[in-house]
Amino acid sequence: MTPGLLPLSLHVAISWVDQTVSRLPAELAPMSSICRRVLAESICATHPIPVADRALLDGFAVDASATIGAGSYNPLLLPLRTIAAGDTIPPGTDAVIALDLAQILPSGVVECIETVLPSQNVEMRGCVAIPGTLLASAGTLLLPAHMAMLISAGLGSVMVVRQPVVRIVLTSDNSVTDSDGPMCRALVERDGGLVANILAAGRNRQAITDALATEGADVVLVIGGTGPGACDHAAAALAEIGNLAIHGVALRPGETAGLGHTNNATPVILLPGSPAACLFAYEMLGGRAIRRLGGRDPALPFRSRVLCAARKIVSAIGMTEICPVHVTTSDAIEPLPPFSEIGLMAAVAADGFVIVPEEREGYPQGAAVTVYLYEGSCIGG
Amino acid sequence: MTPGLLPLSLHVAISWVDQTVSRLPAELAPMSSICRRVLAESICATHPIPVADRALLDGFAVDASATIGAGSYNPLLLPLRTIAAGDTIPPGTDAVIALDLAQILPSGVVECIETVLPSQNVEMRGCVAIPGTLLASAGTLLLPAHMAMLISAGLGSVMVVRQPVVRIVLTSDNSVTDSDGPMCRALVERDGGLVANILAAGRNRQAITDALATEGADVVLVIGGTGPGACDHAAAALAEIGNLAIHGVALRPGETAGLGHTNNATPVILLPGSPAACLFAYEMLGGRAIRRLGGRDPALPFRSRVLCAARKIVSAIGMTEICPVHVTTSDAIEPLPPFSEIGLMAAVAADGFVIVPEEREGYPQGAAVTVYLYEGSCIGG
Repeated sequence: MTPGLLPLSLHVAISWVDQTVSRLPAELAPMSSICRRVLAESICATHPIPVADRALLDGFAVDASATIGAGSYNPLLLPLRTIAAGDTIPPGTDAVIALDLAQILPSGVVECIETVLPSQNVEMRGCVAIPGTLLASAGTLLLPAHMAMLISAGLGSVMVVRQPVVRIVLTSDNSVTDSDGPMCRALVERDGGLVANILAAGRNRQAITDALATEGADVVLVIGGTGPGACDHAAAALAEIGNLAIHGVALRPGETAGLGHTNNATPVILLPGSPAACLFAYEMLGGRAIRRLGGRDPALPFRSRVLCAARKIVSAIGMTEICPVHVTTSDAIEPLPPFSEIGLMAAVAADGFVIVPEEREGYPQGAAVTVYLYEGSCIGG
Repeated sequence: MTPGLLPLSLHVAISWVDQTVSRLPAELAPMSSICRRVLAESICATHPIPVADRALLDGFAVDASATIGAGSYNPLLLPLRTIAAGDTIPPGTDAVIALDLAQILPSGVVECIETVLPSQNVEMRGCVAIPGTLLASAGTLLLPAHMAMLISAGLGSVMVVRQPVVRIVLTSDNSVTDSDGPMCRALVERDGGLVANILAAGRNRQAITDALATEGADVVLVIGGTGPGACDHAAAALAEIGNLAIHGVALRPGETAGLGHTNNATPVILLPGSPAACLFAYEMLGGRAIRRLGGRDPALPFRSRVLCAARKIVSAIGMTEICPVHVTTSDAIEPLPPFSEIGLMAAVAADGFVIVPEEREGYPQGAAVTVYLYEGSCIGG
């Protein structure tokens, strides 16, 4: 009979991920596909931005010195040179007059009623960046504004970190009603990974071994079959095909999680099949591996706030415990029924969760506690 | 000549969006596609969850009353009924003994060394939900855990708010080097919309009118051509084909933004062509319309924090001004060169932005200021 697991500290498991899993190599990506990718190399301007003096607004390009003395009582006549915002200032001019401070006369000249200074309403060559100015640094998660700025700077493609390719192996009896597979696919995509395939190995040890031995993934998530039961083959299959580094983590939910790698050094994360345990073993270990591979911040992808516990939060000493909480209208937190009682309903009912470290038995009422907040929504209209 | 714009308060423009744009109808979506969709109708359990008493861990199913008195010095022999976590408890049993508290003897019976209570290690029928229990409420932004919970509850599809279909019309001279189109596409996708097409109408008024008159979009973003210049046709085209409700918003950057609708009541947002102005007119008005259509929270999709201004933040009274800021290591904020000087580089260089309302001239040093924070990243490994 398989002995009970002797779970290791979550810190040890996280350190294993951090020491074992490193960033994937870079690849060239066209600008249209860079959104939410991670920049692999810093980008500096190669030419001045803007590359020439440009009009900041629609109006008339003028030689500023020719406008000296112009005013409502002394309109001056100037050559007609209309210009649109963003256009290059034509030779012989150095300023722009706004449309409402001049007007076109039937004779085809412009009557100007204000004196302008040289460079007025002009964006000067190089004022945004000169050659060598840092435009975006390596490690930047590229957002829409980065994309637009880099396109404006003349780039057609950039080097980004390759997206981690993830294989998901299901070891449950019934993959049709399985909810862990779709959940993990969505989590992987949230963390910037690409799910290559979801293999249903069932409770068949050879099928699990074969799925682990297949090449082509940067990381493998094995879901279910992580317990000590006779039908649980995930850990044994990994030990056979490579290295089972850790089996059993002092994390609740998620105690039967495991970590290791195949004999070609692909990291493998064993996630318990119970949905809430699967979710948090993914969040704490699997997601961390995928975020590290993709060059993202390895920390949990939730915003956190320090809030006051309105009631005592209870947890077991010796286990890192994830406690679902409700945030009250006065920004206090209240514990909800735990994952051990209502499973994923706890995650769904909660506004967020508190991570009680293994050395604590919880938090007393009134304690300042870090809460990780789920993304919310409401229906407008 | 077109007169200068008389910009309206941003509050008026936002109110127009809120009064004009409402949530789209619901549609049925299969579970595999519901991630990041908005639930249109509340979902209640139709049967008990779990539907039967289930084992909470791998072990042996037993009749608890038959274990009374069992211990290390008094092992009791029981019929062999192995059970895996999640399996239904077989008839005649009401508890589960963990694997390490019993062992199988060669004679095919189980030797039990601990007394268990009825229901011990059993998840009782209906303990998560009874028929009628609310599983997820209308308006929920569906995250991976919701998807898994709803699959576990037996649902194969749910009613979600239809995703807004967005047409983008570019009115710049050169759509090849355009950066606003890709930026807006990425912003629309971030906000849950689907970009149906990006039409390059150029500075051709008839082409803009035709693009506006085409059916099939829930909202149209017209980019560029919003100024008062002779080549700016966006506002005139909208006035011709429908209704130009607002043109000119006291928002910097973004002054020449406009709002209205086509004659078949499709909302149209006019976004300035200058990239930083395009970005913030989108964030404050276009994105709000798309988020409302899709049933999302209409507020800005950034986390915000109240931080202390390390230096004075200057803005123009009478204009809502977006000020890019840097967050120092001590969580204070410092203003960066404004959008009017360095365009989108300000958004890219910033950790976030402050919105200075139109009735203020900025914030003094030491003021507590709400800052909207950009999503960050760093390279791990």
